[in-house]
Amino acid sequence: MYREQIKVLDCTIRDGGLVNAHDFSVEFVRRVYQGVSAAGVDYFEIGYKNSPEFFPGAKFGPWKCCKDEDIRKATQGVENGAKISVMVDVGRVDMDAILPASKSPFQMVRVASYVKGIDKAIAMENRFSDLGYETTINIMAISRDAGPELDEAMDQCETQSRAMAVYLVDSFGSLDQEDIERLVHRARRFVKTKELGFHGHNNQQLAFSNTIESIIHGVNFLDATVYGMGRAAGNCTLELLLGFLKNPRYDVRPVLDLIADEFIELRGRHEWGYIIPHMIAGQLGLHPQDALDLRKTPERDDYRAFHDRMTSLLSQ
Amino acid sequence: MYREQIKVLDCTIRDGGLVNAHDFSVEFVRRVYQGVSAAGVDYFEIGYKNSPEFFPGAKFGPWKCCKDEDIRKATQGVENGAKISVMVDVGRVDMDAILPASKSPFQMVRVASYVKGIDKAIAMENRFSDLGYETTINIMAISRDAGPELDEAMDQCETQSRAMAVYLVDSFGSLDQEDIERLVHRARRFVKTKELGFHGHNNQQLAFSNTIESIIHGVNFLDATVYGMGRAAGNCTLELLLGFLKNPRYDVRPVLDLIADEFIELRGRHEWGYIIPHMIAGQLGLHPQDALDLRKTPERDDYRAFHDRMTSLLSQ
Repeated sequence: MYREQIKVLDCTIRDGGLVNAHDFSVEFVRRVYQGVSAAGVDYFEIGYKNSPEFFPGAKFGPWKCCKDEDIRKATQGVENGAKISVMVDVGRVDMDAILPASKSPFQMVRVASYVKGIDKAIAMENRFSDLGYETTINIMAISRDAGPELDEAMDQCETQSRAMAVYLVDSFGSLDQEDIERLVHRARRFVKTKELGFHGHNNQQLAFSNTIESIIHGVNFLDATVYGMGRAAGNCTLELLLGFLKNPRYDVRPVLDLIADEFIELRGRHEWGYIIPHMIAGQLGLHPQDALDLRKTPERDDYRAFHDRMTSLLSQ
Repeated sequence: MYREQIKVLDCTIRDGGLVNAHDFSVEFVRRVYQGVSAAGVDYFEIGYKNSPEFFPGAKFGPWKCCKDEDIRKATQGVENGAKISVMVDVGRVDMDAILPASKSPFQMVRVASYVKGIDKAIAMENRFSDLGYETTINIMAISRDAGPELDEAMDQCETQSRAMAVYLVDSFGSLDQEDIERLVHRARRFVKTKELGFHGHNNQQLAFSNTIESIIHGVNFLDATVYGMGRAAGNCTLELLLGFLKNPRYDVRPVLDLIADEFIELRGRHEWGYIIPHMIAGQLGLHPQDALDLRKTPERDDYRAFHDRMTSLLSQ
């Protein structure tokens, strides 16, 4: 598949950071940035630009509430560096602390929102847009919030925002290629002048094939992570996606080096990927939190009991 | 997806046996047979029915050249037991040692063949058919042998064999959903009166989505293995497939028990699944042997060198 408009965004540190409370060293983040930049990736999402006052008492590393100086340390001077993206959550950013794009070390801001928060997300996106950033709106949990309110949210993104792309986010990893085909065509009825994006989760080993399916139907902004590192089951793997895209500007080999040098070892210390409770949550279309909680208990591998508990939740 | 004609075949012991030289105990095979039977699976492939004289000096467990008495020990008396299938390779079976179906403990024989061996495969299939077995022909390496000779092979399967199904086997795990759509429609031009089957490998995390895609286009015989256990990257996982099929006769929970009780531990001792050299082989459409050999060496995680060596092989 070759299409010039396709942009690949690596969100290993941002979504992968949900696995380890964003506790990566600056050196590690710099190493990943060098690798994905050498691979020709277009955007590198370095973390959340939320504000720490919204997380009193919480413990986390530097990439949950990125400081501009840390972003600079991790990225300055890297040859052919990918553009830097940060993600923000609705209601968790002190907007007065955000510098204009010309004075900051990142170029793109992605606003993550559930359908019900879309008004606030658009207002926030427009403020970042005013400050000179490239912006996207990432509509989360799109398998759950799939009623007419989703149409309205997509219509608002088209008509009220200046985002360059509207992302469809399969937060629960519950969609398959037939769902993706329908969803992209549905989105296109509303989002006519902006790009569409896709962010998958790999609960059912479908994140890559769903990304392929989104490409087939015209989606151009594609999220992936090195070795699939991301919350719970993780994401579409960057190495698979780059291998699929035939654009000669991508080179999978620096990503292979990152996996060999860093991510095999990291996976030994932190859990993500094809794990049965996450698979069950994906099959049932549920938020990953119950499975994440289960994995911290002695019953972590009692799959049948978890399956039955989740199934009974659904039938209440 | 609910379609009455769909048949699920579990080949955990047969394809998974390629991981451990078919060295499963009778008790383990019986446990798996009980589990997949309780899950409502239609067929259970217990191994190869090849003849040991074709493997002089080789060491392997009981399920590479299954004896009827071992099959009986592993399966007799199991409640609502799935039908038993065995696989045979062209040229590796002493046909005179095969009893009629009425006197043997298995009901189905699947003949595995490359396109170039299809004449012999059909002759063999017809002999098994004469003996009263249900039969299929499984065309392997269908991504490689994809020229006009494949059309001819499929036409021969239709017109010269009595197989109930013709399987399309993505031996190298290199196909994606667009390939599957084209392949199934191509096969249907020739195979008009028999069922089609699909057997995927998971090198690119596409075995499940390719199986879904084959279902969408009318394939009714579906292979899967518990926790994906199979050669190299393994197969479509049975637990994902049963969760996708909405037929109430399937119950994923006994498969979850097998994973919790047996396959997590087994995966700790034997390697299959998403492993980067197998991913590379899948992306490049290569036979898994080079990656399998690599994993036995100290360079097992030198992905870049393996990638470059495989790529240069292709450009020779």
